[in-house]
Amino acid sequence: MKRFLDLADLTREEVLGLLELARRLERHGEPHALAGKLLGLVFFNPSLRTLASFQAAMARLGGHSLVINPGQGSWQMETRPGVVMDGAAAEHVREGIPVLASYCDALGIRLFAEGRELATDLAESAFSAMAALTDKPLVNLESAMNHPCQALADWKTLDDLAVPRAGRFVLSWAWHPRALPLAVPAAVLHMAALRGMEVIVLRPEGFALPEPIMERARRAAAASGGSVSETSDRAQALSGAQVLYVKEWGATDSYGDPAADARLRSALRGWCVREDWFGAAPDCRVLHCLPVRRNSAIADEVLDGARSAVQRQAYNRLPAQMAVLHQLLRS
Amino acid sequence: MKRFLDLADLTREEVLGLLELARRLERHGEPHALAGKLLGLVFFNPSLRTLASFQAAMARLGGHSLVINPGQGSWQMETRPGVVMDGAAAEHVREGIPVLASYCDALGIRLFAEGRELATDLAESAFSAMAALTDKPLVNLESAMNHPCQALADWKTLDDLAVPRAGRFVLSWAWHPRALPLAVPAAVLHMAALRGMEVIVLRPEGFALPEPIMERARRAAAASGGSVSETSDRAQALSGAQVLYVKEWGATDSYGDPAADARLRSALRGWCVREDWFGAAPDCRVLHCLPVRRNSAIADEVLDGARSAVQRQAYNRLPAQMAVLHQLLRS
Amino acid sequence: MKRFLDLADLTREEVLGLLELARRLERHGEPHALAGKLLGLVFFNPSLRTLASFQAAMARLGGHSLVINPGQGSWQMETRPGVVMDGAAAEHVREGIPVLASYCDALGIRLFAEGRELATDLAESAFSAMAALTDKPLVNLESAMNHPCQALADWKTLDDLAVPRAGRFVLSWAWHPRALPLAVPAAVLHMAALRGMEVIVLRPEGFALPEPIMERARRAAAASGGSVSETSDRAQALSGAQVLYVKEWGATDSYGDPAADARLRSALRGWCVREDWFGAAPDCRVLHCLPVRRNSAIADEVLDGARSAVQRQAYNRLPAQMAVLHQLLRS
Repeated sequence: MKRFLDLADLTREEVLGLLELARRLERHGEPHALAGKLLGLVFFNPSLRTLASFQAAMARLGGHSLVINPGQGSWQMETRPGVVMDGAAAEHVREGIPVLASYCDALGIRLFAEGRELATDLAESAFSAMAALTDKPLVNLESAMNHPCQALADWKTLDDLAVPRAGRFVLSWAWHPRALPLAVPAAVLHMAALRGMEVIVLRPEGFALPEPIMERARRAAAASGGSVSETSDRAQALSGAQVLYVKEWGATDSYGDPAADARLRSALRGWCVREDWFGAAPDCRVLHCLPVRRNSAIADEVLDGARSAVQRQAYNRLPAQMAVLHQLLRS
Repeated sequence: MKRFLDLADLTREEVLGLLELARRLERHGEPHALAGKLLGLVFFNPSLRTLASFQAAMARLGGHSLVINPGQGSWQMETRPGVVMDGAAAEHVREGIPVLASYCDALGIRLFAEGRELATDLAESAFSAMAALTDKPLVNLESAMNHPCQALADWKTLDDLAVPRAGRFVLSWAWHPRALPLAVPAAVLHMAALRGMEVIVLRPEGFALPEPIMERARRAAAASGGSVSETSDRAQALSGAQVLYVKEWGATDSYGDPAADARLRSALRGWCVREDWFGAAPDCRVLHCLPVRRNSAIADEVLDGARSAVQRQAYNRLPAQMAVLHQLLRS
Repeated sequence: MKRFLDLADLTREEVLGLLELARRLERHGEPHALAGKLLGLVFFNPSLRTLASFQAAMARLGGHSLVINPGQGSWQMETRPGVVMDGAAAEHVREGIPVLASYCDALGIRLFAEGRELATDLAESAFSAMAALTDKPLVNLESAMNHPCQALADWKTLDDLAVPRAGRFVLSWAWHPRALPLAVPAAVLHMAALRGMEVIVLRPEGFALPEPIMERARRAAAASGGSVSETSDRAQALSGAQVLYVKEWGATDSYGDPAADARLRSALRGWCVREDWFGAAPDCRVLHCLPVRRNSAIADEVLDGARSAVQRQAYNRLPAQMAVLHQLLRS
């Protein structure tokens, strides 16, 4: 494995191999495995778990990391090709990314969706353009439409919780003050489909995931013995569910139109997950990639209760990413 | 020792043991003592010495550290319980702190006083709520009313300077453009009292330290053979003093009222320490935890003169914290 | 070597020794050379290459580094002597720099020109005042009028590209939206002169480099068998050139006067390097220290073409600085 950009680039067996490696590193640390190796982490967008867990993963494997935050400590970087740079950005990624790569053994890059044109964001053009600038090992720390490290860690969490492969996995939209990107729902949908689960996307009207994302997940499900469907009927989706994966995202029907998005979501504050959602799914576990706004997306009573596994999920970023880095830099 | 949150949690003998360890590590480095250990540092407020000296301490003991600055590189975090999070903060400390702790072997947290209600800040409710979220080793990097790392380093400085145990220690208020927290004066008062010194708090009317802080220091002094008193008479306080510890803080009589505080302090610009303060205390040393505003709190002539020990004091953060980390992570 | 503040402090032979060491470290890593050593990096101004390459250099030599950004995570620092500090800056460098030095084995400091008075910036008074505050090994990470790490790396790049010692080296001004400091042109001019090259400074009227800088370079050239001249005639300068080193800088005729500078440069957008500049210098290589604003200072066609060596140049910061750190901390 040379790059970790999209869980869909891996076969089901390759994912299972990474998860086995993650469990092995969790049981038996390898504090010298990446001695002398250096990971560069470039965050165009803020982070907590990704920032901390990648630094921790390198440290626990005996390597080093360095962090660049364009706009904070470093200047803004331009991502658009061909532009006359006489504005705020002092450097183009065409220089910045290969230069940083030349100092390091691997790079990780986080660049969220622009959120203007759905087709542009689906094409991952900005991230892909940066990925093409280096042939060093590269990790997607969250791009416009993907977050493979989150998806891999979540699969491990499902295994840790002994969620059956064929169990019902409900990916539910939740309320947030503004439109958030589609990276996590897209990556997690694919992950659950590839795991072979009965996946139901539960979302209000106007918030359906884009068809290319749904179609890709349906193909993965078909190959893995799972299924993918969608609904806005909460009771139907949750009945008998093993897992409710909660996530906030923007209205796809009015992508790039904050005013229209705000109108749509203004009626949807009821999409805050509460205990009374689980009448027909008493043992259902609740997942969320974090950060989560308490009592906006999920109520305190759920996050602080026994069905929440969000802490386990966040912790699993560490062993999952240790496995990825081990494969990229040592194997 | 599992946590280092308050010097008052330790007996006098435990403090002396930490200081002995600090001196040992100063003489004989242990560059592999914390190999493979990872310290997470969470700064809700800015820092220079604490940030640098904790990273240096881990590096000099062979370990690693990572830094999170909520609001810079990472998002703002909510500390209030039960709130509906639809404002600026993207994550609650109830998630953020245990997640970071799960990646690390120990955490350090800095969170200043809110500065609105004295009782709330005296209760250390925000810091304590975070401390309750993890059972990993934890270090207080300065909370609303405490700064035990500063106090421990200052004790070492007094020893380094051969200040007699029973010497006169004057903790003096100094002018600053605005109200600063009570954390350092409270911690240093307790330290000097626990060391057994003749402690005098010198401050203008309106700036008396809160009674619970004074009372706790008096009890520590009584047990250690020292004393604690307070005055606004500079000549009386300084006569024969061995140490003048200078610190700026807010008006406790009008806590949380910036306008009233500003009126009070507008007449107090004379509280800038100058050489002519020391007529009756010619050998008196001057301490300050830094950062200090030159010629506002202390004049250049004092900071650049022979009686200043502020550099020694700042340096001592390193061996003192190495001792704390060694005890938390190795002993 | 105890400090690396100015390439002009070194003899030609000492520079050649550093370059030999850089090549040796490039061929044969020394992953334990600086084990247990700690470098503190203080950035008063933003950075990308310097920030990343110094952290990478320490990591690749087995040491540690820590980063302080006054104003981001840490507070603003005052550099002026004797000032009454009742404004924004919370700490004076007279405290901050020696304190940081006391935690580390070496310091690096970046502080750009103030850009008000040319004489003040030429005197390097702010940087020199900080340098005088510590006797630890010190590296200039770019000061008002100098950038020795860039110059050293650039010399290595000229060697890597097999540019003849006596070749024609054109240092050309290029357009930028605003006045930039003179640090890089001054340092690079001196480097090329010391290397013994035929150096021509190509710049529009009003942008001549200050006479003290030119004079110092002429003396270095005389001692090394090279020459230094200046012109505003592009065709004459570029004819037969082996290297075009592109750099943006402010109008020296109206130093510290942004409005006058803006009027001067408004007519100079033609100073964006394009392929048609090289009719009489077909094999000329293009260098730039980066960051570069594409299509403002240099056109895409040049940066993306075969004559550009800016990536090699940026990469060379790493081995050049490894050599500097190796000499400062081990030799």
